Parts: sequence; C-alpha cells; structure tokens
Amino acid sequence: MPAPLTTPAAATVFTMVLTQGPVSRVEIARRTGLSSAAVTKAARPFIEAGYLEELEATDRPGPGAGRPASPLAIKPDREFFAGVKITDDELIGVVTDLRAQVLVGAHRPLTTSSPEGVVATLADLVAELLAADPAYRQRCHALGLAVSGDVDKAHGMVRYSPFLNWRQVPLAKLAAAATGLRVTVENDVKSLTVAEQWFGEGIGASSFALVTVGVGIGCGLVVNDRIVAGSHGVAGEIGHIPVGGEAPECHCGGRGCVEAIAGTAPIVTAVREALGDAELTIDAAIDAAHAGDVAAREVFARAGHAIGLAMAAMANLIGPERIIVTGDVQGLAAYDLFEEQISRSFASQAFGAAADCRIFLRPRPFEQWARGAASVAIQTFFTLQER
Amino acid sequence: MPAPLTTPAAATVFTMVLTQGPVSRVEIARRTGLSSAAVTKAARPFIEAGYLEELEATDRPGPGAGRPASPLAIKPDREFFAGVKITDDELIGVVTDLRAQVLVGAHRPLTTSSPEGVVATLADLVAELLAADPAYRQRCHALGLAVSGDVDKAHGMVRYSPFLNWRQVPLAKLAAAATGLRVTVENDVKSLTVAEQWFGEGIGASSFALVTVGVGIGCGLVVNDRIVAGSHGVAGEIGHIPVGGEAPECHCGGRGCVEAIAGTAPIVTAVREALGDAELTIDAAIDAAHAGDVAAREVFARAGHAIGLAMAAMANLIGPERIIVTGDVQGLAAYDLFEEQISRSFASQAFGAAADCRIFLRPRPFEQWARGAASVAIQTFFTLQER
Repeated sequence: MPAPLTTPAAATVFTMVLTQGPVSRVEIARRTGLSSAAVTKAARPFIEAGYLEELEATDRPGPGAGRPASPLAIKPDREFFAGVKITDDELIGVVTDLRAQVLVGAHRPLTTSSPEGVVATLADLVAELLAADPAYRQRCHALGLAVSGDVDKAHGMVRYSPFLNWRQVPLAKLAAAATGLRVTVENDVKSLTVAEQWFGEGIGASSFALVTVGVGIGCGLVVNDRIVAGSHGVAGEIGHIPVGGEAPECHCGGRGCVEAIAGTAPIVTAVREALGDAELTIDAAIDAAHAGDVAAREVFARAGHAIGLAMAAMANLIGPERIIVTGDVQGLAAYDLFEEQISRSFASQAFGAAADCRIFLRPRPFEQWARGAASVAIQTFFTLQER
Repeated sequence: MPAPLTTPAAATVFTMVLTQGPVSRVEIARRTGLSSAAVTKAARPFIEAGYLEELEATDRPGPGAGRPASPLAIKPDREFFAGVKITDDELIGVVTDLRAQVLVGAHRPLTTSSPEGVVATLADLVAELLAADPAYRQRCHALGLAVSGDVDKAHGMVRYSPFLNWRQVPLAKLAAAATGLRVTVENDVKSLTVAEQWFGEGIGASSFALVTVGVGIGCGLVVNDRIVAGSHGVAGEIGHIPVGGEAPECHCGGRGCVEAIAGTAPIVTAVREALGDAELTIDAAIDAAHAGDVAAREVFARAGHAIGLAMAAMANLIGPERIIVTGDVQGLAAYDLFEEQISRSFASQAFGAAADCRIFLRPRPFEQWARGAASVAIQTFFTLQER
C-alpha cells in the first residue's frame, strides 16, 4: 500500500514530478544532479504502481537530445488524501487528489472541545467525505489534521493548543483508531506553509514566508528549502515582534506586539472606543471602515502599519524571496483596509535589498486550511521515513 | 595540493572529524548514516595525505563492538590558513591551524581605503604573518578575508561596503594576485558565524544565532545546519528591527531601529546630551557609566533593552537553540552595562518556550574576527566545490 519509496533518489524524483511536473527525465537529471539512468530507475516503480505516467513524446526534441523527451507526469487520482482543520467551534474537511486539488469539502460544528468528542465528530466527517465517491474509500489511506498551537508532528501529539485548551493529546493515535487511516498532525500555519511550498506560491523558492492575518498574526517560514521548526518548538511568531513601542500589553506577557495591535480582538476594542459602541462586532467594525468612517479606518491603518513593520523585521532577518499574505475569514474581509499601509510600512522599514522581496496576497477560503492539512499528509506519504 | 575531496562522503567524514573529532569510524557511521566500509574508504585518502591520523585504540571496546575502536583525529598542523579582517582604519591578520586555533597575529594601520592601497598593505601583512614560521609558507595555501557589508562570496566580490566606501570591488581576484594564495571573501558577521558553527559554541546545534554589539548591531543565523544568506543578499539585519516605536530615526531610513538606539553613535549622542558634554567620546561615556553616573547608566540600560527585545523578536521567529552575544572592542567594553537589561528584556518578550533559548556571552578580542575569516577559508577548502 505505501508508495514505492525505497531510496532517497526515488523520493527526490517523485517529489520533483509531483511539485514541478510534467518534466522530462533529462530535465529531472539536470535539476537533481542524478544520472539519467538513476532517474529512470527511480521512476520505474512509481510508473508500475500507477503514481506516474509517461506523457506522449513532444514533437520537438530538447536541445542536444537525440530523441524527443517524454515528460513524466503525476496521475493525480492514483491516491486521495483527507485533510481536516480543527478550530475551537468547527471542523472543516476536504478530500484532495495527489496534487492537493480540493475535490470535495464539508463542515461540522463542534459542540465539545474534549479530545474524545472532537475525534468522534472527526470520524463522522471523514466518513461523510470519503462516501462522496467509491474511489476515495479505495484509494485514500492518509488523513492530515491541522491544529493551532504547539504540535509535535513526529509523535502525532498536540502538546498545547490554547484555543482548544488541549495539553498532551495523542491526536494522531486517537484519530487513526477512529478512522482507520494513517494520520499526521501538524500546526495549522505550518500546514498552510507546506501547501504553498509544494503546491502554491512557494514552488521554486528556496526561501519564503507565509503571513496569516486574523484573530492572531502568524507566520510560516521556509529557509534553504526547509520549514523552520524552532529548536524549542517555537518559530514563526511574527505576532510577537514588539513593533508598537512600550504600549500596548499583549496576552503573551510582552509589550508592543503586532498581535496586540492588529489581531481581531484589539481591532474590535479600538473601533468600539472610537465609535463609542461597547457591543460592536468585528463584522460591524469592518462595515464601518468600508462605509468610510475615518476613526474606524484609522484603526485598520494602524494595524496594517504594525503588520508591515513586522514583515520588514522578518525580511531584514531572513531575507525571504517572497512573502505570501493570507488570513482567516475576518483577516481577509478586512484586507483591503490594511493593504496599502502594509506595503507602505514594509517599504519604509525593509533594509536595503530586502525591499525587493515580493509580496503576494492569497485571498483563500477557510477550506484552504483543511487543504493545508491534506498537503502535510501528502508530503509525509511521499517522504522516506527514517527507520 | 587541494585536500582529497573526491566525493560528498569524503567531505562529510572529514568535516565530522574536523569539527567533532576525535571520533571512531563506528561513531561516524552512526552519526552520518554511512556504512562502516564507506567511512573507511572516505577516510583513507585523508590519512594518506596526512590530514587525518588514527589514534591509539582505546582500551575499552565500544558497546557491542568486537574490537577496540581507534578514533580518527585531525592533524592540525597539516595545513595552515591565513585570515584578515579589513576595517576602515586597520587590517587585523592571523595564521591558524586546521582547527582555527590562532598561532600568530598582527595588525597594520590603513592610510588609504582605496582597494589597491588596502591590497598592497594586505600583501605586506600576510607576508609578515607567513614569515613567522617556515612551515606556514610551505603549508598555507588559503587566505580568508572578512569585510563588513554586502559580499558576494561565490564571486569573491565586495558588492557594497559602506565603511570602506567600496562598490563592486573584485577583492578575491586582487588579493589572490597580490599574495599568491587562494582567497575567499565573506561578510564579517557571517565569517564569525562560520567560526562558531565549525569551531565554537555552534558545534552540535542545528540552529543558532550570533549577535554582535558595537558600532552596529549585527546577527549571523544558522538554521537547519545552514547559514541564512537571504534571497536578496540581506539577512541577519537584527539592527533594523523596529523595537523603539516611532522614534528615533535610523540611518537606514527606518524608525525605531535597535541600531539607532544601541549602536555606538546613538549611545555617544545620548550620553553627551545627558552629561552636557558635546565632545564626549564613547570611551568616556563607558567610563562615566562604570563610575556610576546614573544618567549614563540609563542610556546603556535603554540600549540593552532594545537589544534584548530584538533578540526576543529573532528567537520568536527562528527559534534558535542558542544565542551567542559578542561584539567589537567598544561593544564588549560596555557589555557589563547592557547585560542585565538584555537578559531581562529578552525574557519579557520571548514567546513561550522561545525563552528556553540559552544566551552565551563570548567576550572575544578583535583578533577573533580575523579568525572568522580564516574559518571561512578552512570551510571552503574542505567543501566539495560544484563543478
């Protein structure tokens, strides 16, 4: 059942076709430094197992090549993957193909945040998703779960998730028992970063950053082609860069944190104060700003300023090739209110050539966080495990 | 003449003995994942060429081993390396052995900053250093140069060095012609980071940061075992994280930068204002603080606060295992004035387990910057070059 991953070369060749294909063997050899014979040998078992196929030879032979190149391509429906994002009040699930294209999606509200209750609802949701097509049941073996907080992917353990109030929950084990699938668990921002790295704006960039704007301000980093995990389990906490001077206080105990200025809660508080309405919701705050209220717009601009400064601080330190900005529902609904100020403040604080870093906006439906979870399952499925 | 680097395995095995030896073949095989036979094959040419030697077998055989383990060790005087740090007013040079131990050092004042003038003085300095021992002339083939600013190591080019006012200077080529040595050129902070990675506090850490305090505030980063270079040539610019709110303005065009608070120049300015002495030097400012002047001490404490916040911002983003703090002469002379506030502010702003990151002070003579340059020459000498 597992993919035919017998050697590092097999993993390298397959990953290249998956993330950059269709691509000819000659081109794979050039990009990986493997010999043509090694590429052919590595690809064969994947072709035999139906993961790869050889496309028709193109008419034009490559430069200097004696015979036309037959590109290798993925057969996307050879294997399906389930992905579920777990929030504090709902589960969002998808089934994707091998290239992380979303084929079907579904939501389930959560009435409890106990691990057992969440896993029971999860099993229902996954069963519903896989029932959508008999092929899913047959050819889906892996489920990815994305959770905010401190996750130990190697052991499938949620060490601490503040929103769910979970500590040391062996989620992979519980979910595997409930679904019969191989389960990977990863932090939600890292999952989204993996999706961009293999299947999105990160392709071809050895270094990039993903910044998420919403309830919190998060960040996933890829440096020298690898996710930055943090030696002590903490990395990408762009929300706690102190760009706001001595005020305001943040829930983390620090001061001046981006998240204490630009997260959903401080924005709501500031707009409530500005408009003198103690009951105002974030949606109403966004509406007021969209309707042109100057005080409300100023709050969002200040948030954008803080985000732009933090992105510049990150670019000054790491020098990513690109920065992708995305968010949760509220973060994206307000994005046009931040955008100009983010760009302006980023440019004002980026050091020298760090300002050349390109910024992409990826307005994504929340379902994409579930796709991130599936991407981690895909990446794990096709990564040679250490024995 | 070049080291017998024929395969990636040879480079891996040699580097492990150099940075972590003496170490047995069995242990090398365990740590690298190579077979014992591959380790033996990789080590042989280095033994034959005199770079490695087999130590006496230890009395106790390793656990489960049938025969006693004979550790492999470096012969440190098989090859010597020259390293020179170029500042705006002097050259500091050293000769080191294979393990980057400084054997001899010398200074030369610079009377010009023209590339030709600097290279002429450099050639004199290197000749003096190598004349100290006939073995140096015989067995020193490589010279490392460390320069502040934007350096293109691959092409041996100083793209821009503000202190020297150099742009697009082909320094490696000029210095190779003048000295007859193989020359590497690297940014000075990255050079010092390489010295820590291979021969210092970075050994065994897959991720660490080096922070330098002085005229400027710099940072070298190693993440997932590799130096962070920055896609656009900019990385490690911790001095331009805006922790100081909207004021003060920085020479980079940004606001609130650490360097605009904690660099030598702003400290001098602030102490001058506090003491009402427009002619005060940095040495006098440090003396005043050491003598207990409250206003002067406050300036240094503010600087330490800014440095500690920036280190926390970096740790929140990257999650280094360790942070090594070092500096130039002035930075280190003042370090006791910063130290307590750096630790306190770091702890207040580090996010969760990022606070577990250990901070080391490495009070180093300025000569260590020249040792950094030699370390880059060593690393380059023993790195398989792409053909």
